[in-house]
Amino acid sequence: MKVRGIGEQGLLKILQRFCPSDVIGDDAAVLITEPEQSLVVTTDVLVDNVHFSEITTSPEDVGWRAVAANLSDLAAMGASPLGITVGLALPGDIEVDWVERLYCGMTECLQQYNASIVGGDLVRAPVITVSITAFGQAHPQNIIRRNTARVGDAIIVTGVHGASRAGLELLLYPEIGENINEADKQTLIKAHQRPQPRLDILPIRKDINFSQISGMDSSDGLADAVLQICRASNVGAVLEWQKIPVPKVFKNWLTPIQTLEYVLYGGEDFELVLCLPYLEAEILVQEFGRNAAIIGTITSNLNVVVHDDKKEIPDQVLTLDRGFQHFIVET
Amino acid sequence: MKVRGIGEQGLLKILQRFCPSDVIGDDAAVLITEPEQSLVVTTDVLVDNVHFSEITTSPEDVGWRAVAANLSDLAAMGASPLGITVGLALPGDIEVDWVERLYCGMTECLQQYNASIVGGDLVRAPVITVSITAFGQAHPQNIIRRNTARVGDAIIVTGVHGASRAGLELLLYPEIGENINEADKQTLIKAHQRPQPRLDILPIRKDINFSQISGMDSSDGLADAVLQICRASNVGAVLEWQKIPVPKVFKNWLTPIQTLEYVLYGGEDFELVLCLPYLEAEILVQEFGRNAAIIGTITSNLNVVVHDDKKEIPDQVLTLDRGFQHFIVET
Repeated sequence: MKVRGIGEQGLLKILQRFCPSDVIGDDAAVLITEPEQSLVVTTDVLVDNVHFSEITTSPEDVGWRAVAANLSDLAAMGASPLGITVGLALPGDIEVDWVERLYCGMTECLQQYNASIVGGDLVRAPVITVSITAFGQAHPQNIIRRNTARVGDAIIVTGVHGASRAGLELLLYPEIGENINEADKQTLIKAHQRPQPRLDILPIRKDINFSQISGMDSSDGLADAVLQICRASNVGAVLEWQKIPVPKVFKNWLTPIQTLEYVLYGGEDFELVLCLPYLEAEILVQEFGRNAAIIGTITSNLNVVVHDDKKEIPDQVLTLDRGFQHFIVET
Repeated sequence: MKVRGIGEQGLLKILQRFCPSDVIGDDAAVLITEPEQSLVVTTDVLVDNVHFSEITTSPEDVGWRAVAANLSDLAAMGASPLGITVGLALPGDIEVDWVERLYCGMTECLQQYNASIVGGDLVRAPVITVSITAFGQAHPQNIIRRNTARVGDAIIVTGVHGASRAGLELLLYPEIGENINEADKQTLIKAHQRPQPRLDILPIRKDINFSQISGMDSSDGLADAVLQICRASNVGAVLEWQKIPVPKVFKNWLTPIQTLEYVLYGGEDFELVLCLPYLEAEILVQEFGRNAAIIGTITSNLNVVVHDDKKEIPDQVLTLDRGFQHFIVET
């Protein structure tokens, strides 16, 4: 059954089943923010064959990833999710089943946080485009910004970096995974298909002084995140290559240069990069356990330098040009 | 200068000039809703060659209309605008000037209400797609819904209907406007290119009991609005054809059947359709002056009937199928 066959009203009826019945059916949705909370909003647009493709991503995964990307932005601001709106542009010959599965994936990711789809728009277009706007709330004093990193701060990353990119490569070129075991392979593929927004990190310590933390998520790559924070805060950084957590399987599978490429520029790991005074950073890392590590220090020198004690990779200065930029890098 | 030439970062720098500098530059934007106000959110997606075209719409007008459509949804909920996010998907060969002019149009419409662009996303795509999410606030008791119309309510419309569709036809087929004067022509064309969201209507009476009002905007046509309200409220309606305000120029220019088509099904007039008890309705209409009229009554019979005293048009039962539906009506 094609979307064209049931029309906008028919498809709307199906999709409204994914939304709480008390918030839909009007020109707009009504949400209640708790008293003394600020509203935090973020938007992401995903385009077929630019951000996802049939080959690597099921419709459920497209939905999950679209939501995860937005919730990750909320996590990076220190906010808790309230809900999302979905602007969906579709060709008429798309299967209704595809759209339902997309919404299943979105809902699955949202349900973890008691958030839901509160509204949206449904239009015809020559190419599938999914535009999500996510709403969250945070106490104004707990909001985390990019432009407050200070010289001497420790740089913390959550999770591992490079896994999502490795998973994507394994989906595109299965033959490169011949020498690694199935469990490792599936972990990397899952990191790409079902990334988890790090909404679990910041609520861990209610007593922490959030005003000392600056940061963002690493959706466009670890290098990009550190560079953006440094540019916004007018500081630099030194990263210790050996301290950046990477998937264990990389060691015997990838060359150091491949590892560097995946870890610094791979993107879509949706982890957090946080800067805060060393004393607090050490307490936090202890609390997070294997979920976080200190990987470097904020410096007054405006460069972002990667230094490797073991000289597996050459020391280097990172630049924004290397990250993924739309319009220029047309793959 | 093409977008591809300056890349995502270059274009972002230009577009950020349209946003307040204190809300941009982070993973998400932070907005403050006033105490005791609910958050009202709405999303609209516009696609090149589906919702606008080079022939009829300058980039400034695309921007204005995209914002107006969203603010109209807020107006229909009884909410005041706070700001919008813009998800912009663009082919790399679009002129940077086109994008700047789009943002000029959006900003011009927003500035009337002290609202602004607070964030967004910028991605590459084969077709221009503009996804706007608008945020507003309203006191929970003043929110206007579709599903509360009651038998015996008067049905009010603001402004005139059919003007936007007539303006579009004049842009597409200038020859049909040969017999009407230039001022009338420009008024109709402006109604299409620069619709005004009716944010001026509901704040007019601070003392009104909003809980008695149900309604929505007429963005998808007057017939669609009345039908949607009736379906949601499980009621019907009788509309008096002669009471529906239409542009004066229609009388000697269009046949009654053309007028009916433009007025009931034209769409994009972005006026309000409100249902409320007759007594209050009459007070409101007096207050609004030429800006509003009572055009019919809510009935227990579930049909929506149009009745013409003067028999210029045949009496008829309206159906949702006649309105514009994506996917089915592929023009």
